[in-house]
Amino acid sequence: MKHHQNALTPPLGWNSWDCYGATVTEAEVKANADYMAKHLKQFGWEYIVVDIQWYEPDAVSSVYHPFVPLDMDTFSRLMPATNRFPSAREGKGFKPLADYVHSLGLKFGIHIMRGIPRQAVHQNQSIKGSNQTARAIAHTNSICPWNTDMYGVDSSKEGAQSYYNSLFDLYAEWGVDFVKVDDIADSKLYGAHIEEIKMIRRAIDQCGRLMVLSLSPGPAQLDHAAVLEENANMWRMTDDFWDLWPPLYDMFDRCYRWSKNVGPGHWPDADMLPLGRIGIRSVDGGASDRYTRFTKDEQRTMMTLWSVFRSPLMIGGELRDNDDFTLELLTNKDLLAINQHGSAARQVYRHNDHVVWCTNGHDDSVYVALFNLTDNVGTVTVTSEQLGLPIDKFNCVEDVWTHDILPQGNYELTASLRPHACQLLKLKQSRGV
Amino acid sequence: MKHHQNALTPPLGWNSWDCYGATVTEAEVKANADYMAKHLKQFGWEYIVVDIQWYEPDAVSSVYHPFVPLDMDTFSRLMPATNRFPSAREGKGFKPLADYVHSLGLKFGIHIMRGIPRQAVHQNQSIKGSNQTARAIAHTNSICPWNTDMYGVDSSKEGAQSYYNSLFDLYAEWGVDFVKVDDIADSKLYGAHIEEIKMIRRAIDQCGRLMVLSLSPGPAQLDHAAVLEENANMWRMTDDFWDLWPPLYDMFDRCYRWSKNVGPGHWPDADMLPLGRIGIRSVDGGASDRYTRFTKDEQRTMMTLWSVFRSPLMIGGELRDNDDFTLELLTNKDLLAINQHGSAARQVYRHNDHVVWCTNGHDDSVYVALFNLTDNVGTVTVTSEQLGLPIDKFNCVEDVWTHDILPQGNYELTASLRPHACQLLKLKQSRGV
Amino acid sequence: MKHHQNALTPPLGWNSWDCYGATVTEAEVKANADYMAKHLKQFGWEYIVVDIQWYEPDAVSSVYHPFVPLDMDTFSRLMPATNRFPSAREGKGFKPLADYVHSLGLKFGIHIMRGIPRQAVHQNQSIKGSNQTARAIAHTNSICPWNTDMYGVDSSKEGAQSYYNSLFDLYAEWGVDFVKVDDIADSKLYGAHIEEIKMIRRAIDQCGRLMVLSLSPGPAQLDHAAVLEENANMWRMTDDFWDLWPPLYDMFDRCYRWSKNVGPGHWPDADMLPLGRIGIRSVDGGASDRYTRFTKDEQRTMMTLWSVFRSPLMIGGELRDNDDFTLELLTNKDLLAINQHGSAARQVYRHNDHVVWCTNGHDDSVYVALFNLTDNVGTVTVTSEQLGLPIDKFNCVEDVWTHDILPQGNYELTASLRPHACQLLKLKQSRGV
Amino acid sequence: MKHHQNALTPPLGWNSWDCYGATVTEAEVKANADYMAKHLKQFGWEYIVVDIQWYEPDAVSSVYHPFVPLDMDTFSRLMPATNRFPSAREGKGFKPLADYVHSLGLKFGIHIMRGIPRQAVHQNQSIKGSNQTARAIAHTNSICPWNTDMYGVDSSKEGAQSYYNSLFDLYAEWGVDFVKVDDIADSKLYGAHIEEIKMIRRAIDQCGRLMVLSLSPGPAQLDHAAVLEENANMWRMTDDFWDLWPPLYDMFDRCYRWSKNVGPGHWPDADMLPLGRIGIRSVDGGASDRYTRFTKDEQRTMMTLWSVFRSPLMIGGELRDNDDFTLELLTNKDLLAINQHGSAARQVYRHNDHVVWCTNGHDDSVYVALFNLTDNVGTVTVTSEQLGLPIDKFNCVEDVWTHDILPQGNYELTASLRPHACQLLKLKQSRGV
Repeated sequence: MKHHQNALTPPLGWNSWDCYGATVTEAEVKANADYMAKHLKQFGWEYIVVDIQWYEPDAVSSVYHPFVPLDMDTFSRLMPATNRFPSAREGKGFKPLADYVHSLGLKFGIHIMRGIPRQAVHQNQSIKGSNQTARAIAHTNSICPWNTDMYGVDSSKEGAQSYYNSLFDLYAEWGVDFVKVDDIADSKLYGAHIEEIKMIRRAIDQCGRLMVLSLSPGPAQLDHAAVLEENANMWRMTDDFWDLWPPLYDMFDRCYRWSKNVGPGHWPDADMLPLGRIGIRSVDGGASDRYTRFTKDEQRTMMTLWSVFRSPLMIGGELRDNDDFTLELLTNKDLLAINQHGSAARQVYRHNDHVVWCTNGHDDSVYVALFNLTDNVGTVTVTSEQLGLPIDKFNCVEDVWTHDILPQGNYELTASLRPHACQLLKLKQSRGV
Repeated sequence: MKHHQNALTPPLGWNSWDCYGATVTEAEVKANADYMAKHLKQFGWEYIVVDIQWYEPDAVSSVYHPFVPLDMDTFSRLMPATNRFPSAREGKGFKPLADYVHSLGLKFGIHIMRGIPRQAVHQNQSIKGSNQTARAIAHTNSICPWNTDMYGVDSSKEGAQSYYNSLFDLYAEWGVDFVKVDDIADSKLYGAHIEEIKMIRRAIDQCGRLMVLSLSPGPAQLDHAAVLEENANMWRMTDDFWDLWPPLYDMFDRCYRWSKNVGPGHWPDADMLPLGRIGIRSVDGGASDRYTRFTKDEQRTMMTLWSVFRSPLMIGGELRDNDDFTLELLTNKDLLAINQHGSAARQVYRHNDHVVWCTNGHDDSVYVALFNLTDNVGTVTVTSEQLGLPIDKFNCVEDVWTHDILPQGNYELTASLRPHACQLLKLKQSRGV
Repeated sequence: MKHHQNALTPPLGWNSWDCYGATVTEAEVKANADYMAKHLKQFGWEYIVVDIQWYEPDAVSSVYHPFVPLDMDTFSRLMPATNRFPSAREGKGFKPLADYVHSLGLKFGIHIMRGIPRQAVHQNQSIKGSNQTARAIAHTNSICPWNTDMYGVDSSKEGAQSYYNSLFDLYAEWGVDFVKVDDIADSKLYGAHIEEIKMIRRAIDQCGRLMVLSLSPGPAQLDHAAVLEENANMWRMTDDFWDLWPPLYDMFDRCYRWSKNVGPGHWPDADMLPLGRIGIRSVDGGASDRYTRFTKDEQRTMMTLWSVFRSPLMIGGELRDNDDFTLELLTNKDLLAINQHGSAARQVYRHNDHVVWCTNGHDDSVYVALFNLTDNVGTVTVTSEQLGLPIDKFNCVEDVWTHDILPQGNYELTASLRPHACQLLKLKQSRGV
Repeated sequence: MKHHQNALTPPLGWNSWDCYGATVTEAEVKANADYMAKHLKQFGWEYIVVDIQWYEPDAVSSVYHPFVPLDMDTFSRLMPATNRFPSAREGKGFKPLADYVHSLGLKFGIHIMRGIPRQAVHQNQSIKGSNQTARAIAHTNSICPWNTDMYGVDSSKEGAQSYYNSLFDLYAEWGVDFVKVDDIADSKLYGAHIEEIKMIRRAIDQCGRLMVLSLSPGPAQLDHAAVLEENANMWRMTDDFWDLWPPLYDMFDRCYRWSKNVGPGHWPDADMLPLGRIGIRSVDGGASDRYTRFTKDEQRTMMTLWSVFRSPLMIGGELRDNDDFTLELLTNKDLLAINQHGSAARQVYRHNDHVVWCTNGHDDSVYVALFNLTDNVGTVTVTSEQLGLPIDKFNCVEDVWTHDILPQGNYELTASLRPHACQLLKLKQSRGV
């Protein structure tokens, strides 16, 4: 099965990075999975993803310990730190945890760093399925600029593909459904690592299990759009996203530029949603334990943009600490409907930081999002002509957030908006009328 | 009507640049139009485009005379040089010539340079519909690096939009159907001139006539794909293309990278086809009067790539000098069918300069193009798995160039190919069998 | 005579730009010359320089009128606007004004823009000494990004050198001693225009009169240091300098990097001194009519750095409005001594924005400048070892600004300094003691 | 003593890289030292330098073994591989070999890579003089792009300076006189590593022994000229130089641009002289065991440029295999005189790849070098005016290579030169005549 037959709609899930940095434990993962099964699964959420450095026993934060020993098997493959993931003992890896997640009707994902552990290279460890060793396949000029765990793998070397195959064979045995590969879609030292992306694609294709392939960090380059789509299911449009207005503001332009590249099985990724309680054991993004720094208007603006554009949605917050507002944000049926099943999404116009997007719903409805990206109250308007739609043919205009039915003109939609706020309108033809 | 409702299929036509540089005359344009009406129109060819500097009375080549006087009306608008276009006398402009082309059932296009004539600026001429003058709207830092006719127009100045409106109003009066705007999609000094692209879009939208908007030169940047699509019908993926192997070789990667951006009303443009007799009064591209320097294999390779990818097709050669081979190239029904009506075109793989593309025909057929871009004879193969298609369900495989029915395996297609050659295969299900 | 035998010490003078922008008049030039002759000449000041657009009759500010007609002779050479320079009437050009300046015992300089007037090119004017015309020698891709007066001249064209020769022949007739050529040492569009620099060098060498050649704007690139020194007497290390701390702060690094390239006849230029009353008819630098925005400490810091480094010194203020403090700054004998006759100037160290420079005086003295570039009060110290000098061999340490004799240790010099302040110490051996 | 009081003239020596790559042995070093003492010392040659990877027991070529174990002491300091340097046994390091070289009246140098061994970091070894460990001071984003031995050292970390101090303390104990530090003056990943250069400067200054500090590879940037001079004695103007015409051709421009930065104690470095027999166990530079690929004309051209410019001279060939021509090249008294004691060297002009340089001898002589860099025979001429010298005041013009006295005109020097050839003329005033 081709990878584009997987992830036919944008993946929806939870990821441990925003709240736990490099430190999440099995208990925390399970607890968030339990919450998802109970509160979110019925809305379509399904992935539970363990982010970076699950193989580092002493991780305490989002700040990495340079050059420290990592848990690894004899084939140069990193293994879960059993002090953090007790069920991984006796070489079981993530299989027990994946089984648990699957038992809840959810899917299980992990994060990995591109490459082979430096400790395997300097100790010259074996590679499964090859008589080459770690030293022979490590790329002599390929490091991650921000983490010292790995060396890149040189695709021209014998044994290189075997190594990646052995990795994904292991993950298939564990029951992994989703792999987020990091230090690969962009690097401040080297740009994107295209050859390693291709090796990973081949490794997944041969492993016998469907896995969503997600590439980080960003910004990926549009010039690589074709090769990214050819090899991955999702890739980051941006560097790590946090709960600050400037990167949210910037995302509008990123979404505009990438909107031609959205489609079944291939999703440009606006990154995690830093909603609810985050930073619990992370200081990335310039802050620590907190409720999201976004205002409520900004949170709605983010959710609306991510949904209309059809970005994957990965919740960053500790789910158990969600308040009602956060949970509502994550369970709005209209938003999830256009995220999962919208079509022909497009920016209608952008003028003086008033922005309008539009998408077709999966029924005959049309959704129009009016955004005020300025720092002042403003009135955002869009006409039938701009939309290419006869507004007067729709006899019902609903505010998706409040469910109010709004009176609107025959030829234009308009909203008075607070700074950074948006209104998402659903245009319906109430047939019985 | 939105511009994406125009040019719903890739424009097909003839352009004077490759054979006549900056010098084409009315008689030559008419003669090529006559030829098209007689020999090509029935295959879908329709545009006759007068390329650069029709306003330069003394043009003799593809080399521009710097700073010379140009024919211009009192509103800073360039007018056809009447020594070259006699029907333009008495201020008639291109209307008589456009009428002639229309009378043949064809469409008429012109080339313009972005901006306002420098002579209008230094003489401080008027602008129609504005009390501002040329001096007031000219951009103080905006020239073309390779031609001295114009200054850019500063969109922030009052009167700037009026100037562009007045230009396209005039072209609408003339009956222009296609405008190729140059020095705008890329500039070695300034990059793309996005604000002028937007002014031109608005000017066309207000002029009351449908015109295809084509942007030059290239390479346009993928980062601008969204804004180009939002404003234009076609834009160049490449700098000027000529009859040499290296740029043809490069086009494969360009097409691969841009293939996500092809669609009704918006066409990444691989540039003119330097086929037949070219260079008659041009020395651009490093040669003068000649038959195309491409081998026959290379010509077929070019036509196949342009067709599968769905580039606009603009013939560069003097049509009256076409030989049989050239005319056949331009009238192959299968090629034109996939160019006009193919769907889901994609590069299937590229490995060691063996390249395979695939596209769906408009019936149930599938077309597979096998290319050998190496300098050696080679066998190019593609499997059902690579294609994502069960080859054995098709019971007829036809060579589109020779119309031979080829024996093929059940699970792969294969071709032994000369250097730079290709084979285009049509896979059909002969229902009666 | 080789040009390095000219400007054997850094040129000292006044320039009209900082106070009058593009608008200075003959009366103002004369008045400043009178002031210089009376108050500054005895300290070594000698150049009076008329800055940009003396050929623009309607100049009102530092903001240029784009594309307007300029005063020009029949040989494409710009001429002083006679409404602003009445003595230039009847084609006399700047000769009468130069004569006046010379009569005061001073020297006369002008500013020119690289290239040939665009109006000459579009009118196709003659060139003296060549049968080529302006149109033939203008570079087809060479403009100034911030002024529309000129096109560059293409050194590969016949007549190009003749044009520049005719320019400098005219300036020699006028009695010009100093020429500041602009848009040449750096351009945001094209980098440095090396070939035009060489043409100007040759034009001066053939004109029969010594002229200091000063190149603008900056920042010139160190990679061009050799070619700049080979052709010019001074060149800008920086873009236009104004009375703001950040560019003054940056100048320390520029001086550090360029300090190897300072020497008789060739002077890296830190740009004009925005001291006293400036901005009278200029809004460049973000402000208008004012006394310098520098604090007194910053003014002393600037004068000390420029002097130790041996930059040319060009006063930017209206001399007649000098207050006592400004005049003292400009007439400090020690500063002028090290500027004119110092040797082996060097940055001794820079640490946490405490900076020490050192230079030998022309007698046996040594000057040490202690700078506090931080925003806090701080104590700056330098040791004998750092200086490579036995401090205890000097039995007299004088504060150059206050003339106080300071007690100092045997092995280090130290100063408590306000933010942005400096102390310049003169170390002497009082022999009679 | 300041480092600029060391290397008052350009260092002259031999380096093992060009002939032995990473593999030179003690016996070979001694044999070359013996040769130098016997044949070259009397001409001023004095340094014997052991190049890269003397700590790699299994080095076989110029190609490095990635990630292999290196000989190292318990303080993270690399030690000579005792299989290659037997006298280094029992922890004696290079002391015995240095003693031997000193006993011949010569000086001893070594090559090191910037940074700390990766194996020390991954094993978390100690650092002498600090309670920090290798892991604590390694820079987390700092590798060499072409060799896997080291990580960079992070100057902001406690213990970083201690590590470098301990290195140079050890080298001082050994009796090292010259250290070539690699991967530091330029890096394709990071540019120059300025902070590590400064740490090394401080480490040498505190170690109690004079050592010439040489920085590699290049090209160093002119923008760093001041900081390089402030910290080092020599630094490379170029990437590795080999016996091919294009890099020799390029060196003329490099020397032109760097000529202002030559002076006592600080020498821009044109890199080793690939003369005589080279490539014995090296395949760097695209060839293996050979006599230099330079023609005799090119060899003279190289020696002349290096000498006039005053580059350090490091012989790359196996000295024992020198033929007469090579030995003559290395012992020409005039060349060595201008290299060691010339002054005011400058490029007089460059026109169409005819190049003239000039330098003053240490007596009243002047040397003029005429170079023909074209691929055709040509006549190169220089006039008194161009030289700024009255040629007719010199009554004797000698060809430095042939010692012929040449008839020359009163006002110009001229030479007919083969392609890539040069003539070096000595102009003398024979007083008695």
